[in-house]
Amino acid sequence: MSDAAEYRQAMSRVGGAVHIVTTDGPAGRAGFTATAVASVSDSPPTLLVCLNRASAANAVFKANGVLCVNTLAAGQQDLAGIFGGLAGVHGAARFARSAWTPLPDGTPALAGALAAFECRLAEVHEVATHSLLVGAVRHIVLGPMGPGLAWFDHAWQRLVGSGG
Amino acid sequence: MSDAAEYRQAMSRVGGAVHIVTTDGPAGRAGFTATAVASVSDSPPTLLVCLNRASAANAVFKANGVLCVNTLAAGQQDLAGIFGGLAGVHGAARFARSAWTPLPDGTPALAGALAAFECRLAEVHEVATHSLLVGAVRHIVLGPMGPGLAWFDHAWQRLVGSGG
Repeated sequence: MSDAAEYRQAMSRVGGAVHIVTTDGPAGRAGFTATAVASVSDSPPTLLVCLNRASAANAVFKANGVLCVNTLAAGQQDLAGIFGGLAGVHGAARFARSAWTPLPDGTPALAGALAAFECRLAEVHEVATHSLLVGAVRHIVLGPMGPGLAWFDHAWQRLVGSGG
Repeated sequence: MSDAAEYRQAMSRVGGAVHIVTTDGPAGRAGFTATAVASVSDSPPTLLVCLNRASAANAVFKANGVLCVNTLAAGQQDLAGIFGGLAGVHGAARFARSAWTPLPDGTPALAGALAAFECRLAEVHEVATHSLLVGAVRHIVLGPMGPGLAWFDHAWQRLVGSGG
């Protein structure tokens, strides 16, 4: 078994897009910053998000049964910090510093994100410290295209596409 | 429900590291290129890989019960193409054009990769067209650090870290 510190060091070499995952509904509004997001299938469109079981947001996502994955653009790292808990702001107050539009199932889509995927929570699997939230994608919004925000080598990075 | 084409277009905006996932054992050697890899937990170190249920490799991974996630460095895109099926090379022949070292559980680690995570297959969940392979990380190898290979905006990209 590798240990946690060795694993985190190796994972710092796995670059990835940064997302803010949101929910809203009867259990309230919540959101968190995630890099552990994967596409599962395009038939039907299905994605997966890992969420800490110890987080206050965990029960809120499960109770609402809907989620939105907002893929951040380069330049949105301050917001990623807020939703990652780095700014000491918790709960619904995290939403105060940016513009959000409710999608058809009520989840908040972030202005300026490269893409937003609104999902119905289709399955949950509990694995170690985290819940695997499997989302059936129901609505997609494309924002303006540009460089993406990535996390790699212990820091925010800019991921530039073919168009510059 | 969003459709497959719309979903793939939106997913092209989600940048991600590129990996070659390998196995070896009684069922033979196999490997495929993946971007759908996520870290699940560091306690204990656990990751997740999505693998098409229709692929020939699927049964091989399940039978061997071990896998290695090799995180590619910038410059290894030709190899990513071979293991992604773009070069028309199938099965164990894909391994011929690069150097591999067996890790303690027998899976092939790629020379020059940024990191390699050898895992025991701990759980499998079938979701839509894909299998979610949950791997308990047992051995880690760090390669030379440098820019990573990413897939973003329909093309290979170079993801540069803090050290350049």
